[in-house]
Amino acid sequence: MKFNKYSKKEKYSYALGVYPTIELIQNRPDRVARVVLSKKGGSNRGVQKIKEICKKKNILVEYNENTLYKFSPKGNVYAAGIFSKYISELDTSATHVVLDKPSDMGNVGTIIRTMTGFNVYNLALIGNSVDYFHPKVIRASMGSMFSINVSSFKDIDTYMNIFKKHTLYAFLTNGKKSVRNIKFKSPASLIFGNEGQGLGNEYSKLENTTYIPNTNDIDSLNLSVAVGIGLYELNNQ
Amino acid sequence: MKFNKYSKKEKYSYALGVYPTIELIQNRPDRVARVVLSKKGGSNRGVQKIKEICKKKNILVEYNENTLYKFSPKGNVYAAGIFSKYISELDTSATHVVLDKPSDMGNVGTIIRTMTGFNVYNLALIGNSVDYFHPKVIRASMGSMFSINVSSFKDIDTYMNIFKKHTLYAFLTNGKKSVRNIKFKSPASLIFGNEGQGLGNEYSKLENTTYIPNTNDIDSLNLSVAVGIGLYELNNQ
Repeated sequence: MKFNKYSKKEKYSYALGVYPTIELIQNRPDRVARVVLSKKGGSNRGVQKIKEICKKKNILVEYNENTLYKFSPKGNVYAAGIFSKYISELDTSATHVVLDKPSDMGNVGTIIRTMTGFNVYNLALIGNSVDYFHPKVIRASMGSMFSINVSSFKDIDTYMNIFKKHTLYAFLTNGKKSVRNIKFKSPASLIFGNEGQGLGNEYSKLENTTYIPNTNDIDSLNLSVAVGIGLYELNNQ
Repeated sequence: MKFNKYSKKEKYSYALGVYPTIELIQNRPDRVARVVLSKKGGSNRGVQKIKEICKKKNILVEYNENTLYKFSPKGNVYAAGIFSKYISELDTSATHVVLDKPSDMGNVGTIIRTMTGFNVYNLALIGNSVDYFHPKVIRASMGSMFSINVSSFKDIDTYMNIFKKHTLYAFLTNGKKSVRNIKFKSPASLIFGNEGQGLGNEYSKLENTTYIPNTNDIDSLNLSVAVGIGLYELNNQ
């Protein structure tokens, strides 16, 4: 199998770096095509751990500086895990994070990492969103991507028709109730808009809209900060 | 005055984009050397606003596609504001955010934006930190940089000797008390470690150490998410 440059159309993607590679082989061993290591990582403890796990799980390991260089021209990466993309379905009884048309790969990765930090393992993407298997998303998630379910939906109505048991909470700068005073009903869907526009008008009509109290000095909080605060409140209940 | 490529040694830096440029000329008009506009931004409302403010405040405006292209080769920027760097002193009676050796420019910019969203306008950087006047920091702050005071300190002892009135709260993964149960005394210093290592041992001995409750799935939260949650709690009190 040859694998050069990532594109959305590829069947394969990769986790870059020791820590994300460990997350991959631990959580999705059946999807791993092979692990690529650098000779430079010789005595690195994480690299040793990767080798042990691969041996135990019968995962192909190769040393290939060229492949790693292609993935990361800065040349400071000891490991990568190439995997075939997979479809995951969201848990119908668990709480979800729902992102409407997120466009920043770093934000989505950071949000995935934050989700696993706050016990939420299901992510719905609505409309035209980033390619969540892009290596940049995986890297920003520090490999947390491999412990969650992600699924895409054409629009919010499609999502709502599937997850009828969920109570929806839309985060809007002009939401009705401060997030501090929300009692989240389980399973909940915490919905956030994209980096530029926030949530569109179709969300204002939802029963539960909420805001994060902040000053007028800024238009809105950074998306990953807003999701972090929402999940922090949820996790405190 | 010629200004080509940014470097830390330069006396000048720049705000890139319409919104950050507006923040610059509104908050630090005395530091602005000139504003550079693109002909392409003709009817853009933000560009109109920039022209009005510059006229009122007697700020030099020039059209120069080359300069903008140098600042942003992707060519989608209508405005930039070139300014001479300045020294700002922290308010001795106000609450501070304190970052120990932050190394990611995007994180620091996002944190500055989050600070102004939660009424905190003083930032201390401890030890070897990012160049806070770097255009990437300013861009990630969306221009909020120009409404806060930032100052650097050699180490935390130097900082503590100057701000004796402040009560220090160190955010550590093994902090003594959940941030949920902290009653912040004003003026407070909320202290966060860097992206990779967190806070060193010299902080564990502080009287007030706090943690953000989260799962063991992740080592720690993303730095800007952690600061966002800390400031959210502070702002709720």
